[in-house]
Amino acid sequence: MSAVKCIGILTSGGDAPGMNAAIRAVTRSAIYNGMSVKGIYRGYKGLITDEIVDFKTQNVSNIIQRGGTILKTARCEEFKTPEGRKLAYDRLMEHGIDALVSIGGDGSLTGARIFAQEFNYPIVGLPGTIDNDLFGTDVTIGYDTALNTIMECVDKIRDTATSHDRLFFIEVMGRDAGFLALNGAIASGAEAAIIPEISMEKDQLAEMIETGFRKSKNSSIVLVAESEVTGGAMGVAERVKKEYPQFDVRVSILGHLQRGGSPTAQDRILATRMGVAAIDALLDDQRNVMMGIQNDEIVYVPFSKAIKNDKPINRDLLDTLRVSSI
Amino acid sequence: MSAVKCIGILTSGGDAPGMNAAIRAVTRSAIYNGMSVKGIYRGYKGLITDEIVDFKTQNVSNIIQRGGTILKTARCEEFKTPEGRKLAYDRLMEHGIDALVSIGGDGSLTGARIFAQEFNYPIVGLPGTIDNDLFGTDVTIGYDTALNTIMECVDKIRDTATSHDRLFFIEVMGRDAGFLALNGAIASGAEAAIIPEISMEKDQLAEMIETGFRKSKNSSIVLVAESEVTGGAMGVAERVKKEYPQFDVRVSILGHLQRGGSPTAQDRILATRMGVAAIDALLDDQRNVMMGIQNDEIVYVPFSKAIKNDKPINRDLLDTLRVSSI
Amino acid sequence: MSAVKCIGILTSGGDAPGMNAAIRAVTRSAIYNGMSVKGIYRGYKGLITDEIVDFKTQNVSNIIQRGGTILKTARCEEFKTPEGRKLAYDRLMEHGIDALVSIGGDGSLTGARIFAQEFNYPIVGLPGTIDNDLFGTDVTIGYDTALNTIMECVDKIRDTATSHDRLFFIEVMGRDAGFLALNGAIASGAEAAIIPEISMEKDQLAEMIETGFRKSKNSSIVLVAESEVTGGAMGVAERVKKEYPQFDVRVSILGHLQRGGSPTAQDRILATRMGVAAIDALLDDQRNVMMGIQNDEIVYVPFSKAIKNDKPINRDLLDTLRVSSI
Amino acid sequence: MSAVKCIGILTSGGDAPGMNAAIRAVTRSAIYNGMSVKGIYRGYKGLITDEIVDFKTQNVSNIIQRGGTILKTARCEEFKTPEGRKLAYDRLMEHGIDALVSIGGDGSLTGARIFAQEFNYPIVGLPGTIDNDLFGTDVTIGYDTALNTIMECVDKIRDTATSHDRLFFIEVMGRDAGFLALNGAIASGAEAAIIPEISMEKDQLAEMIETGFRKSKNSSIVLVAESEVTGGAMGVAERVKKEYPQFDVRVSILGHLQRGGSPTAQDRILATRMGVAAIDALLDDQRNVMMGIQNDEIVYVPFSKAIKNDKPINRDLLDTLRVSSI
Repeated sequence: MSAVKCIGILTSGGDAPGMNAAIRAVTRSAIYNGMSVKGIYRGYKGLITDEIVDFKTQNVSNIIQRGGTILKTARCEEFKTPEGRKLAYDRLMEHGIDALVSIGGDGSLTGARIFAQEFNYPIVGLPGTIDNDLFGTDVTIGYDTALNTIMECVDKIRDTATSHDRLFFIEVMGRDAGFLALNGAIASGAEAAIIPEISMEKDQLAEMIETGFRKSKNSSIVLVAESEVTGGAMGVAERVKKEYPQFDVRVSILGHLQRGGSPTAQDRILATRMGVAAIDALLDDQRNVMMGIQNDEIVYVPFSKAIKNDKPINRDLLDTLRVSSI
Repeated sequence: MSAVKCIGILTSGGDAPGMNAAIRAVTRSAIYNGMSVKGIYRGYKGLITDEIVDFKTQNVSNIIQRGGTILKTARCEEFKTPEGRKLAYDRLMEHGIDALVSIGGDGSLTGARIFAQEFNYPIVGLPGTIDNDLFGTDVTIGYDTALNTIMECVDKIRDTATSHDRLFFIEVMGRDAGFLALNGAIASGAEAAIIPEISMEKDQLAEMIETGFRKSKNSSIVLVAESEVTGGAMGVAERVKKEYPQFDVRVSILGHLQRGGSPTAQDRILATRMGVAAIDALLDDQRNVMMGIQNDEIVYVPFSKAIKNDKPINRDLLDTLRVSSI
Repeated sequence: MSAVKCIGILTSGGDAPGMNAAIRAVTRSAIYNGMSVKGIYRGYKGLITDEIVDFKTQNVSNIIQRGGTILKTARCEEFKTPEGRKLAYDRLMEHGIDALVSIGGDGSLTGARIFAQEFNYPIVGLPGTIDNDLFGTDVTIGYDTALNTIMECVDKIRDTATSHDRLFFIEVMGRDAGFLALNGAIASGAEAAIIPEISMEKDQLAEMIETGFRKSKNSSIVLVAESEVTGGAMGVAERVKKEYPQFDVRVSILGHLQRGGSPTAQDRILATRMGVAAIDALLDDQRNVMMGIQNDEIVYVPFSKAIKNDKPINRDLLDTLRVSSI
Repeated sequence: MSAVKCIGILTSGGDAPGMNAAIRAVTRSAIYNGMSVKGIYRGYKGLITDEIVDFKTQNVSNIIQRGGTILKTARCEEFKTPEGRKLAYDRLMEHGIDALVSIGGDGSLTGARIFAQEFNYPIVGLPGTIDNDLFGTDVTIGYDTALNTIMECVDKIRDTATSHDRLFFIEVMGRDAGFLALNGAIASGAEAAIIPEISMEKDQLAEMIETGFRKSKNSSIVLVAESEVTGGAMGVAERVKKEYPQFDVRVSILGHLQRGGSPTAQDRILATRMGVAAIDALLDDQRNVMMGIQNDEIVYVPFSKAIKNDKPINRDLLDTLRVSSI
């Protein structure tokens, strides 16, 4: 039998749709396996400041369909210091919490890893981030919903772009990873995507213009990942206005609504599977691993691997986008 | 029997969801009544440049659910000149078009009015604008869809606002009319709305702050109509950041997606009723009138009235918003 | 100052989207006006069995966007008896509840009316029903959402109907009132609607067939209100299969999903306005009235009027549907 | 250089969301690679009856977001006979069509396989079916959209189920494959799923009842795959009503709307990738293969394998559902 009798659960970093489905599955699977569950509010911050409550199955009823996180989330500078982490550890001991399930992105798992090593404390992580930029899992919780949200927004903008023969630059999230911009462009039938993986290498906009971009079309849509290098949608649009003064150029920045919304089926199923797997992992004495999904099977990814490595985009998709939008 | 044997139909100005439903109803009702129909592309511009095609019932099949306008729309400086309007008139004569149905907002109807007077030519208008700012009709085609789009976006942003205890300023359309901002705020459970009708009178933000805005709440959402007076969401947020440095303030500008999307039931029904009524009006020798809806009955509103008068907001709704968001 | 210091609030009968927005507005407006609020679960049943809890503003946070009713609803045979109502009255006295706000349809208001008269007890009602069949209000809470849900379902079915050249009969709610079927048909571009108001008078299907229904079209959709007279969609489809064996006929019964879903902007605004108005009415010593909306203004409708009179459909809409679907 | 200079494209069998995205990608990729394209309407039936038109890039503009299939689809008994297939072959020759891209499910690929062998004719297939029951591909075009449609419907029904403390049996598609029912149940937080893979082995309902199904919950939802064995949702509900007369049991049959709707991002991306890959396959002299996706890579699956083998469900998901719905 596992030594884990009581788990704590928290969400950390940027919120992502599906986090509530994960909280629900972790809670219920823990209770199903005879553990008790403590919900920790506002991530590591609430752990330090003792925002911790008992969680029963009813606490997670009727939340699978909701965006955001009922446990809320917050940034926590204090947890980055040894003193802060000591305070966090003391809370866990006070509440009799034997292991922690942490749901979040890169920063959250980095914090989890340091803490786990410092105190030899069992933590398992769930990858919750719309950016899909964690290594070791084919997909992260929240990515599919954000992708569909982007697509639906672009569908709406296309209505008006087509009606007016306009050229739209639409900025989406993904400062370091082009998954949302590239796949969002394919899904919405956009003409091009400008993504960070490529903008380091070459000038995507110049290439678009050279290859006769927009010769045959009256209206066009380009998805642009937010970026200091390109200046995002605003920066790109400014350049185009100079080069093509005849174009009726517009900019739209989708912003925070990309984080919200009721999660898609894929995100809910993924979050539920990973939530159940997290408890299985603890029962199996696993620790310091992130749940991942590879080829539709759950895998355990060491925190160190998930954080350190970059997840590459599939470059074939650049061709797919180009060919399908002629 | 009516003298009108052939009508032309066009959409002009900013596109609005429901315009296609209107095009469908006008076309079918005209054909039902024995008229022939010409679709004119790109508004008054296409009328001048002769982008005119025959429309049968099939041309408007399967479009009721689509956003934008299949007839496209464009601004047209030339139509503002007597020479341009003469060219337009010549085209109508060449095609044997006896009357025009023009779907659009304030600018479109203004153009229609001048043209109708200059050439003693029968035109009927349909109010198509998301801003809902035409006098003489309780509601315009596109307003209900835009209102729902805004609400759905705010619902998504609330997910993340609540997860992070943030204060959001969300900018919506309506430079001269606060219908979208005020009703959008009530519908989405936002805490306040900053609207043009009031910002001329007093400083809504100062008042919000004085009355203890946001004392009891962790996260808040304020809808702000785009405005030169207030600076829109950006301008308001800058002021709040200075006054309340402790708040985690964010801005979101919804932008062009407010114009798109599949129309709601109300917009499709309204557009269909108005489209059928437009042909009834022509059969009844009406001209130079906009279709309006008042108390769920179709009315004819002279262009002059619809354009010149401001439609007031219902100020009771300001109280409704305040009371319901404590 | 009003004698009402504490109100009870309940939802009764079939649930309708927007009920939560109404609960939120009633609760907050009452608190804003210095009253205390008791939430009564499961309608009159919970009143009798004492499922009554204190409601603060937080109890109604973040519910405006949710379908169903957080207060739940139930049928209650006991409340139809004098003994049951006496028990209900005793509970109200025990809890110090001075007035009741009841949200529901015909049955709920009938119960409210009898109770109010029997015990000389102040009750105000809110019209909450997707069927839109209450007299004295242009529209009821839940109707607009149900109409949009129906339209979206028909939009989906049209995708497959068109792909297969099929004739679909789709059954919607409204046993006694054709609002959903008729307006749903116009909104979704359906070819016809079979509604109770007309099926008493004549054989709508026979007429459709006689007038050459479906001569010019490959696929068609007919909305049918549930009905004992016509047999609903199943009954109508059986007859068509016999008369037109060459048609590829399909039936779809939308069923309970018509009651659910996040409320539309119109329903949320209506529910919020009516909720605030209900407290205003109590402050103004009104009682035994239903909140109604007429010409965009709140009105008070005596229970007796709201219940006894039938709300007529606008028969012009039958022509609108016929003309727009040729 | 490839011998293929002109391709034909058709959709066959039940329509599925994403088919239009596939048509768009096939058409554009073919043109990009110098081929000409013929659109064949109504599947093999239209091939025989010569419903064949030239397709340019504009023919597939603005269709990626639409449900159904612009090429329509039909059953075709004649194509099951050698005579019918000979007629089909003659048409292909007349139009100079060198290869065929067929999008559809099991039946469509079976027909394609026989035809390809009989006439030594190059065909590539795309798996288009919401049931996800084709071997050799992790997922089929249309499945993700149908899964999300089911989930959204169950979300709506849960609103009313929860409000009324009811037990709902909801019937979904998948006569031979439980993917939609099982994953739909996990995604929507349903309590159980009754699926064909298991109903052959044992009585799932009896087991649910024995294991104390619904002891701790007021409302419950069970997804039931359509089935002759269990009688579908109706059959299961009848049995429950007898065993548990105290439950308030309701049935909902989702029906044809599961086939419709704008495709999700995953379906559009999958369809676009497979559409581009189909032309790549022809350029590479592949034939008689279905495009599949495995571990996010495109693979070629021989028709014989795709048709003959059953795709198994992941039985771990049964545990996931059970544990997460306690």
